Amino acid sequence: MTGRPGEFELISRYFAPLATDPGSLSLTDDAATIPGWPGEDIVLTKDMLAADVHFFANDPAEAIAAKALRVNLSDLAAKGARARGYLLGLALAPDWDEAWLKAFTDGLASEQAAFRVALYGGDTIRTGDRLMISITAIGSAPSGAAVRRSGARPGDEIYVTGTIGDAALGLLLRLEPAFASRLGLSQTHRSHLLDRYLLPQPRVTLAGLLRDYANAAMDVSDGLLADLGHMCRASGCDAVLEVERTPLSEAARCVLQSAPDMLGKCLSGGDDYEILAAVSPGRSAAFLKAVSLLGVPVTRIGNMKEGVGQVWPQHGGEAFSCGQDVGFSHF
Amino acid sequence: MTGRPGEFELISRYFAPLATDPGSLSLTDDAATIPGWPGEDIVLTKDMLAADVHFFANDPAEAIAAKALRVNLSDLAAKGARARGYLLGLALAPDWDEAWLKAFTDGLASEQAAFRVALYGGDTIRTGDRLMISITAIGSAPSGAAVRRSGARPGDEIYVTGTIGDAALGLLLRLEPAFASRLGLSQTHRSHLLDRYLLPQPRVTLAGLLRDYANAAMDVSDGLLADLGHMCRASGCDAVLEVERTPLSEAARCVLQSAPDMLGKCLSGGDDYEILAAVSPGRSAAFLKAVSLLGVPVTRIGNMKEGVGQVWPQHGGEAFSCGQDVGFSHF
Repeated sequence: MTGRPGEFELISRYFAPLATDPGSLSLTDDAATIPGWPGEDIVLTKDMLAADVHFFANDPAEAIAAKALRVNLSDLAAKGARARGYLLGLALAPDWDEAWLKAFTDGLASEQAAFRVALYGGDTIRTGDRLMISITAIGSAPSGAAVRRSGARPGDEIYVTGTIGDAALGLLLRLEPAFASRLGLSQTHRSHLLDRYLLPQPRVTLAGLLRDYANAAMDVSDGLLADLGHMCRASGCDAVLEVERTPLSEAARCVLQSAPDMLGKCLSGGDDYEILAAVSPGRSAAFLKAVSLLGVPVTRIGNMKEGVGQVWPQHGGEAFSCGQDVGFSHF
Repeated sequence: MTGRPGEFELISRYFAPLATDPGSLSLTDDAATIPGWPGEDIVLTKDMLAADVHFFANDPAEAIAAKALRVNLSDLAAKGARARGYLLGLALAPDWDEAWLKAFTDGLASEQAAFRVALYGGDTIRTGDRLMISITAIGSAPSGAAVRRSGARPGDEIYVTGTIGDAALGLLLRLEPAFASRLGLSQTHRSHLLDRYLLPQPRVTLAGLLRDYANAAMDVSDGLLADLGHMCRASGCDAVLEVERTPLSEAARCVLQSAPDMLGKCLSGGDDYEILAAVSPGRSAAFLKAVSLLGVPVTRIGNMKEGVGQVWPQHGGEAFSCGQDVGFSHF
């Protein structure tokens, strides 16, 4: 404890500068008081992250801060909501030091500037054996317009943004460094996969288009197969997933060339933080055009059909088995 | 892990029944979407609790659930806000079992019914060496009417509800069981003090009166002296605390008879969850009458005066020293 500041010093030195919304009263009160957003619903989400489960304890503090915030921003974006602010619960690891906390809060400051959100409040405790971060993110969406998982209908086209599987492969590279050498991956490809695990890119620019075009949407955090399954069950229909259409990065393609069985990992690994959306066929051309104008890659990967909530992966028209890895649980 | 349900089973079996607000979509989506409250501001607070810091790991699960929620409800009430709902972050201890979780969520269900709040969402992880609970509570207050710490003015009378110091003494009894025997406390008094530590009683009925009458208010969680100091600094005035006026329970009086030095502990210990309020002298009679009609005991313990944020404890007109214990930090 020697030389480390107490709770109130931490607040005034590191957290208060993040409380840029007047309603947070620079964290000098028991609660934040913010005006609502007329005509908008309040959208609320919460994700907890723990060292050595959701990130590595020795990841850069700025990257940990960014990931903790971004996984929440990704949820809001997938609902068609605009992020407004967040509350931060921080359980510091026993070996925390001030330099780490400075880097962590510097990271949050950069994220706040980039995503235009503010710290509304929070709590810091120092206990337990590892760092844990519990963020509640608050956004808003025009009344009644937030996009749910449950609105997909038979016949809808299923789209996913970006590429799938990079983060799962990046995590594998972290856990098994020898794997990369065995595959003969270039430094560029290795970096790409590692970065995709370290730093999600929430698709915040898509929030408005999802409201306009998607019957159902969610972010891909538990793995494409598992999350498509969640959407199917919530919507009460089945999905045909055309596995060969899954968008893969050049780096992931390189991995699959040497290790084709990694395709299952790509489909079932977590942490993609891409958007999965179901769009009526009659609206898909307009959706694709609008998304492409925003510079976001999007790929049709299948269709919804009548059913009771099951995903049917196919490859070249044949049933495809993804192995045992169906869904990545952070629990 | 054997025999214990996975995350999605936990959600559907234990948490979804708590999500009684339609906006939480029975926790089947990534985010809750709730309409705002027209004419009301959103009031947000977050308190984290960890086993063996804020409660004992072997406390009844229902009591842990109640305390975790109530410390947040206390913050909202002190701001004059009505509680609406909460998000629950739960990091389960390695040895959790389903019976514990059932009791914990049963406890939350009872609390929800009593305080008329709903679970909006959350996240559960299983990692770390101990149970941690991170609750974000959401309330609302008429626009611009939420009560701050910073509104006290020189001349204001300082009031506190209920009795002070019971929870600090209750904690002491838990930590040093021999202490109670040495004092010769009756079973009734011992139970009173232990209960006050175990189960805070947030003063939710006072929220409206605080908006009507208080220039400043906050709940007493870090100890009366420390929290009065927070109010003084936020308000830019000093406080004279008439220590002999501090409201004490019969049990606390019994302790002080044998151990008069425990008065400092009463004033500086935490976890009272009573309301501290500054009221203009001209409004105090009406305030007292209204509070007494609600059956809540309230006591004037001093006055604000010109100053820069300092508390002056006095006993019989003489300066009073509370010893080294100025303020209890949960950090």
